[in-house]
Amino acid sequence: MNLILLAPEQALSDQQYKLSDRQIEHIAKVLKKDHGDKLRVGVLNGLIGDAVLDKSEWRVTIETLESEPPKTLPMELVLALPRPNMLKRTLMNITAMGVKKIHLLHSAKVEKSYWQSPVLKENSIYDYLVEGLEQARDTVLPAVHQHTRFRPFVEDVLPDLLVKRMGLVAHPYQAEPCPVDLVQPCVLAIGPEGGWNEFEMQKWSDAGMQSVHLGDRILKVETAVPVLLSRLYPAK
Amino acid sequence: MNLILLAPEQALSDQQYKLSDRQIEHIAKVLKKDHGDKLRVGVLNGLIGDAVLDKSEWRVTIETLESEPPKTLPMELVLALPRPNMLKRTLMNITAMGVKKIHLLHSAKVEKSYWQSPVLKENSIYDYLVEGLEQARDTVLPAVHQHTRFRPFVEDVLPDLLVKRMGLVAHPYQAEPCPVDLVQPCVLAIGPEGGWNEFEMQKWSDAGMQSVHLGDRILKVETAVPVLLSRLYPAK
Repeated sequence: MNLILLAPEQALSDQQYKLSDRQIEHIAKVLKKDHGDKLRVGVLNGLIGDAVLDKSEWRVTIETLESEPPKTLPMELVLALPRPNMLKRTLMNITAMGVKKIHLLHSAKVEKSYWQSPVLKENSIYDYLVEGLEQARDTVLPAVHQHTRFRPFVEDVLPDLLVKRMGLVAHPYQAEPCPVDLVQPCVLAIGPEGGWNEFEMQKWSDAGMQSVHLGDRILKVETAVPVLLSRLYPAK
Repeated sequence: MNLILLAPEQALSDQQYKLSDRQIEHIAKVLKKDHGDKLRVGVLNGLIGDAVLDKSEWRVTIETLESEPPKTLPMELVLALPRPNMLKRTLMNITAMGVKKIHLLHSAKVEKSYWQSPVLKENSIYDYLVEGLEQARDTVLPAVHQHTRFRPFVEDVLPDLLVKRMGLVAHPYQAEPCPVDLVQPCVLAIGPEGGWNEFEMQKWSDAGMQSVHLGDRILKVETAVPVLLSRLYPAK
């Protein structure tokens, strides 16, 4: 937690926010801050600045809000739904890296039971996104969309996403090496552990998506995603 | 597990290997292979090919060994010792990505207790490396060196590593953006969660290491490492 992120429901007044249990624990045990110390805080979807800690009431009073959150990645990330444990870490990591549009998608090799996971509940997703923001000192909450059917997504949703965006689909075969430092925004689709099937690859291709690969090594989704994002755009 | 990796101690003869408990479980429960089915296998530090499964004795007989393992990254990775849980995942991920020389290093902001972790025992490290190899269909075991003192490493070990290699140290301040697609081998040093301290940065700089950064976002070590490796060299 490199930033204490303050959500609207924590506000006591314009300047005062009460701290969540998780934040109290972090401030007390990791940061070891005293009454009256300054903390780096950010307002959810807003600016970043300093606040003063009131340890008796476990609240903070904002003193300054002067910094913009860091730059974002100009992309829409489409991710075949990973298994729940991998999903948690992936949501945190892609949020920390600056992805702001996330589409979780069904695919032939995604187990249907994954869609029932409590990780996918709105509150739970929110918590992982917030952890990613606090890690990266960001304040802007990503939007996460869930698409439980592959074909309607590709036929009805994807065309709009591809307006003025380059379409890329990660696939190990019949693909070009992943490009580096794109100058335009993109849509990037990353498959499940067993990969996209033939029908799905045909649909991506029909939609105008270009196949890119990461070489001969098979990486876990949690590694493949940062590897791909890091090649597509330089960190800023 | 995308490859069944066969170690010398599993050999019953030139062609026959007995399977480990972990491999048996994977073959039975995930791959769901039958007696007589073919499996993709690799010989530790050797070639990759096909073997036939004997399910009654849980052994395999190699039929062909025709493929070279995938290409490796031309680098030495120096990593301030992460906390044990992060270390496990990081060892697996960097092995999967093709790092073959790993130096775990002490630093001012590494908790001394981390060096006592059972994760650092030789057998335990071996298991995480093997998991990384099996993930990426690789066979070549990385070498892991443990350096419990910072200064002797930088003064006595590093100069030899830097012969014919470019030296880079990840640091958020007074640094250039991380370069992309190096043509030469490198040494890359990645700090602990709190970063390198001033003395350490001075020592890296005195040794000829150049500072590189990943932008304004603070990433976890497990994300920062794939992000850096992926920019330094294209996947092959």
